[in-house]
Amino acid sequence: MSARGDRRLAAGMVGGGDGADIGKTHRHAMRLDDQYVLAAGVFGRTADTAARVARDLGVDRVYRDHHEMAAAESDRPDGVDVVTIATPNDSHFDVARAFLQVGISVVCEKPLTRDSTSSAELTAIAESTGAILAVPHCYSAYAMVRHAARLVRDGALGDIRLVVVEHASGWASTPLELGDHRQARWRTDPDVAGFPSVLSDLGTHALHLLRYVTGLEPVRVSAELTTLVPGRRVFDNASVRLTLSNGAPATLWASMAATGNEHGLRLRVFGEQAALEWRHEDPQHLTLRGRDGAATILAQGMGSLSEDATRLTRPGMGHPEGFIEAFANFYRDLADLLRARRDGTAPPARELSIPTGVDGLIGVHFVETAAASHALDGAWVDAPSARVMAGV
Amino acid sequence: MSARGDRRLAAGMVGGGDGADIGKTHRHAMRLDDQYVLAAGVFGRTADTAARVARDLGVDRVYRDHHEMAAAESDRPDGVDVVTIATPNDSHFDVARAFLQVGISVVCEKPLTRDSTSSAELTAIAESTGAILAVPHCYSAYAMVRHAARLVRDGALGDIRLVVVEHASGWASTPLELGDHRQARWRTDPDVAGFPSVLSDLGTHALHLLRYVTGLEPVRVSAELTTLVPGRRVFDNASVRLTLSNGAPATLWASMAATGNEHGLRLRVFGEQAALEWRHEDPQHLTLRGRDGAATILAQGMGSLSEDATRLTRPGMGHPEGFIEAFANFYRDLADLLRARRDGTAPPARELSIPTGVDGLIGVHFVETAAASHALDGAWVDAPSARVMAGV
Amino acid sequence: MSARGDRRLAAGMVGGGDGADIGKTHRHAMRLDDQYVLAAGVFGRTADTAARVARDLGVDRVYRDHHEMAAAESDRPDGVDVVTIATPNDSHFDVARAFLQVGISVVCEKPLTRDSTSSAELTAIAESTGAILAVPHCYSAYAMVRHAARLVRDGALGDIRLVVVEHASGWASTPLELGDHRQARWRTDPDVAGFPSVLSDLGTHALHLLRYVTGLEPVRVSAELTTLVPGRRVFDNASVRLTLSNGAPATLWASMAATGNEHGLRLRVFGEQAALEWRHEDPQHLTLRGRDGAATILAQGMGSLSEDATRLTRPGMGHPEGFIEAFANFYRDLADLLRARRDGTAPPARELSIPTGVDGLIGVHFVETAAASHALDGAWVDAPSARVMAGV
Amino acid sequence: MSARGDRRLAAGMVGGGDGADIGKTHRHAMRLDDQYVLAAGVFGRTADTAARVARDLGVDRVYRDHHEMAAAESDRPDGVDVVTIATPNDSHFDVARAFLQVGISVVCEKPLTRDSTSSAELTAIAESTGAILAVPHCYSAYAMVRHAARLVRDGALGDIRLVVVEHASGWASTPLELGDHRQARWRTDPDVAGFPSVLSDLGTHALHLLRYVTGLEPVRVSAELTTLVPGRRVFDNASVRLTLSNGAPATLWASMAATGNEHGLRLRVFGEQAALEWRHEDPQHLTLRGRDGAATILAQGMGSLSEDATRLTRPGMGHPEGFIEAFANFYRDLADLLRARRDGTAPPARELSIPTGVDGLIGVHFVETAAASHALDGAWVDAPSARVMAGV
Repeated sequence: MSARGDRRLAAGMVGGGDGADIGKTHRHAMRLDDQYVLAAGVFGRTADTAARVARDLGVDRVYRDHHEMAAAESDRPDGVDVVTIATPNDSHFDVARAFLQVGISVVCEKPLTRDSTSSAELTAIAESTGAILAVPHCYSAYAMVRHAARLVRDGALGDIRLVVVEHASGWASTPLELGDHRQARWRTDPDVAGFPSVLSDLGTHALHLLRYVTGLEPVRVSAELTTLVPGRRVFDNASVRLTLSNGAPATLWASMAATGNEHGLRLRVFGEQAALEWRHEDPQHLTLRGRDGAATILAQGMGSLSEDATRLTRPGMGHPEGFIEAFANFYRDLADLLRARRDGTAPPARELSIPTGVDGLIGVHFVETAAASHALDGAWVDAPSARVMAGV
Repeated sequence: MSARGDRRLAAGMVGGGDGADIGKTHRHAMRLDDQYVLAAGVFGRTADTAARVARDLGVDRVYRDHHEMAAAESDRPDGVDVVTIATPNDSHFDVARAFLQVGISVVCEKPLTRDSTSSAELTAIAESTGAILAVPHCYSAYAMVRHAARLVRDGALGDIRLVVVEHASGWASTPLELGDHRQARWRTDPDVAGFPSVLSDLGTHALHLLRYVTGLEPVRVSAELTTLVPGRRVFDNASVRLTLSNGAPATLWASMAATGNEHGLRLRVFGEQAALEWRHEDPQHLTLRGRDGAATILAQGMGSLSEDATRLTRPGMGHPEGFIEAFANFYRDLADLLRARRDGTAPPARELSIPTGVDGLIGVHFVETAAASHALDGAWVDAPSARVMAGV
Repeated sequence: MSARGDRRLAAGMVGGGDGADIGKTHRHAMRLDDQYVLAAGVFGRTADTAARVARDLGVDRVYRDHHEMAAAESDRPDGVDVVTIATPNDSHFDVARAFLQVGISVVCEKPLTRDSTSSAELTAIAESTGAILAVPHCYSAYAMVRHAARLVRDGALGDIRLVVVEHASGWASTPLELGDHRQARWRTDPDVAGFPSVLSDLGTHALHLLRYVTGLEPVRVSAELTTLVPGRRVFDNASVRLTLSNGAPATLWASMAATGNEHGLRLRVFGEQAALEWRHEDPQHLTLRGRDGAATILAQGMGSLSEDATRLTRPGMGHPEGFIEAFANFYRDLADLLRARRDGTAPPARELSIPTGVDGLIGVHFVETAAASHALDGAWVDAPSARVMAGV
Repeated sequence: MSARGDRRLAAGMVGGGDGADIGKTHRHAMRLDDQYVLAAGVFGRTADTAARVARDLGVDRVYRDHHEMAAAESDRPDGVDVVTIATPNDSHFDVARAFLQVGISVVCEKPLTRDSTSSAELTAIAESTGAILAVPHCYSAYAMVRHAARLVRDGALGDIRLVVVEHASGWASTPLELGDHRQARWRTDPDVAGFPSVLSDLGTHALHLLRYVTGLEPVRVSAELTTLVPGRRVFDNASVRLTLSNGAPATLWASMAATGNEHGLRLRVFGEQAALEWRHEDPQHLTLRGRDGAATILAQGMGSLSEDATRLTRPGMGHPEGFIEAFANFYRDLADLLRARRDGTAPPARELSIPTGVDGLIGVHFVETAAASHALDGAWVDAPSARVMAGV
């Protein structure tokens, strides 16, 4: 979408070029509400690659590296407000530091850095320069997770007695790293991802979800790290016990090798008065269980939800998360078709997937035929031939 | 996001200004893949309103009405490629005709027009001028619906024997129209929405989904239209029998008054060899049932899905529909905070919802503590104080 | 189980011998609460068969036919209180009449008889002789169905506005009748089961469930009967519209050819204030939906259920329907093993499926080891070798 | 049901009298397949109570205590084949020993005894006298659990890599023991149930299920026992890590205080090739997940299941666990009504819950009316008045 005036923020990106899924996801997310203009970036290793990526993304200012970018952008009056770091774990520290030091805010994927000393250094720099250092533990941004946190804060569960959180995915239950799966290769390389790779990648999400919803912090930890896929060089499964800051016990299970699982992020919080459960496989619902055993399922969009949830709901009640993506799919197919028309090239074979006026006409015919049948007390009425309609 | 070069299409919009949810949804969808620039439009009744909306949306060219817009845009070399019509049903025909006649493609919500004669006129105009007239029956754009259609085409179900489709929502199970619910008021006004309102609004979606997945057309119709909410002026519930083009029976149930239902769109197709089921409440899954009674649930992102599905999947396996929206929520909150910083205004109270470097640091500490515990054969190890960390 | 005194009733059975599943089910059901002694019956065509069945069932009094049985039993002071008819549909009338005429109560499967005239004759005879004529529409005997009916009676749903009931099974989605499937053969024979076979078999259950829960009666009917399996001689699918006695519309879908479905009985009742849903695939839960879209799932055994439900719940909260059957499986395997011991025959191979004292011992060891680990602050403690334990 | 000849076994029971749910469940289970005659027992503390219980149960031989019973029954040629012990945990050892020593088989609830030494003594006695000592870990007797075990044995999962088992119930999430809840009182009394009460009661079931399905044994244990309900005198929650005999890690979570949970028994087994999941809340299904993420749900009664499962399935495909219980409910209500008729007492108010010939007649009328409508191409046909029918 085009510029909508000066309320939009200037964004930059380091990494996230070719084949980098996470870069794409950040851009999708930035676009949705039209709050950012992607204005500058560092993309890829070579100047050619970088220029091509920048052109595809409509980015005007391309830099060779983050040092050059930080210096130049901090000098410009219209320099970027925020930079997204979409590079592998081992470069997070250096890139983030470069921007934070000059007061440019940063969005950095977890794990923030490779050790807590360097992470603490980054938070200290951000504190001193007033820049924001944000980490996209974005599961806490689901409307129903926000509502869950609100319920806990408002006392709906009573004292929290026990928390069970899982982030047990099956994505790497085979030795993908032996093939050419890029993410699998670096996530199973101890030099890049660290030995407790599964905890850095998934365990930290599970922990943040637990902390976000309950408001409790872990005060002690007992962990068993295991390797489920034979030959793998990092731990791909972890069973962790926590004692939380209110004394309650918790368990956290993180796995990248839970055969057959989808994403596997799931939180259960048991309180004195009630319990709640949220699953990432069904993100637009939240289950509450009372002491009598009744389970109540709340749905995104319900009028009775807290403002924390409703402000994040784009389509209304009944339209699940993902509706906008389906709508965007429609528009993407349409764009392909329109461009083919404009450019005089052959339309894509999937042209037929786009509902057209003929579909609209069939719909109107359907309504008319149904109304005619109803007027005849439900008698059968022939529908106009679709073939004829399509030929109109 | 900013312009990304000349591959993007110029889009226009008529309607969809203040308080119009559907306009917002169209814009969200257009933005996601960055294929469109919203360049022109007609917004609202007064010049002031229109100017404000256009400014908020970053739209350069604002027109008084669709006639003026059609004339001007068709004259410009950089005129809009496509116009989205987001006005109430009764103006669809006039607006769509204005653009189609000058060869500008149109996206028009269903019902296309108020009767089949006028709908047929539009499809004829589009045919003659070569413009695309697209109708966003966007449920057919879900990846798993595409996969369902592919399975049917490839014969995985064998001959289709029976189809059961429902679009039974509970959104208007109370007399909302007596209050100030804008959509309820026009959807229950027979002069605007027609008596078979529920069929026009929801029944046509259900019909399109049936047609899209099965490739079959209705050839005869028997309908019972009823009014469930006492005093309502249109039919809010419909039970329809269809005979499909291959002779198979089908039932279609549309309701806007199915108390307590969410969106309620659900398709079941029964074939000789297998059956399939898709529910809009859980759009990223598709259930197949074999003749032996085993039910197999396919998930978006699985490597073994058809290209029809995988090309539409933005994040990978395990990330449900909606993940991008959660991610966008994160970025929206961040934008609010960054602007507050930039403008020197008070940060929003929900600032705390944004995971920051402290959260990242806690995550890294967690990984380190867990690794230390593991090295001690699972012994309990104290986690650094969150309070201390937050104070870093 | 052995006799428990004179509170038990004397029961008889006609049919239900070799290979007759429904006879077995009736006997299982009679045994569970130990309220009946099966004392007399007519089994099979030949005297030999009948005698063998009677011996296996422990039935003392065996008759050649129902006429002989009715005469003899009505003469005895200890004659049967009730007779279960487990013969094919076409003999129901004659058998039921024989017993009802002499004042013996009857349990007769639906369809009661082949036409309403003869059914009415039976109800009239029962009325005049004071015998009970009971029809096992036993879905209405689930605890959660009873609770559903109670909620409707107590006004929890408000006025009933719409009912949707399905009994769509997939059991005969292939032409089973061409093979040696006994039930499929008679249920697809129009001379035995009638042309609307699917309605007689499944539609009547769906109708009774609707009537039982809502308390409403059908006052008019519009039906489409179809044959989904090519070559089948009866209708195997039915789409029925009903107008109920309060004016509300209803739909009833019955199918024996819904490919891949399990039992497929499901009721949805939409009221002014709330809606309810019950599915036979998950019989121990009942879902209520409020006008705001929240869905509350009630579970059998909850303390807050109505007496109508709780009086029918054998094990407590959390033990699903079927727990008793699993328990009975344990006892059945044990009986096989004990008999093998007693008779000196080889124990069945599945002997190992019976949990024994070694399993009990392993359990106790587990508790002790876990307690020891806990005492050591969660340190790992070796469990005693299972091999050693098994050898104790 | 009455005796069915000498194939039945003579059973005894110690305990399980008034108010003892577990005794009732054992009797229900024994009755279902008519393999046992309850012939002798020890019931209650006083002679009067014992006599009344025995009379209600139809038990002929009543003893003062288990010593007397063991001596007498072992002397009789028709002495009991097996004795069920349904007394509190602390008497298990003494009662079981009395019978095992004289060669009478025993069914004893877990925990078998209070410590492993005494448990081992029992298994040794059973070994020496040839008696069976069976422990009703009856979850392993569900058909779908048997099928799960078969799949593991047959290699469908490949090597087992990880097991996650939970038995997390919410039954005691409030301090029930402060009231008059009998079971809660003894299960939270450390002198009766032991401090690790939750492990003895629920953890042992979870462990057996894990062992039964996987065929693996625990070789080391790390446990954290906690008390979730303030003031409770025993541990009511346990988080246990296990290393299994093939080296795979496992976690076991047992809780009696997981607020809002039903029964909470759930097993997940992750193998190299596939994973399986079974939940006690839905016992007639088993989910298999392949490495590609597809989940296949198998249902009890499917023709393609293993013999291990099908031999335990009483009603056919589509009739869930619990169908027999619903059927038995029907028969129980009928018995109440028949007795009232016989005794000339007032029929119970719930008489109306029994479907009668009038319901059968309405069903037949429904079929006839639907057939008439179908003959008229689906036209509406009035149904006979239910009131008239009821008056026939």
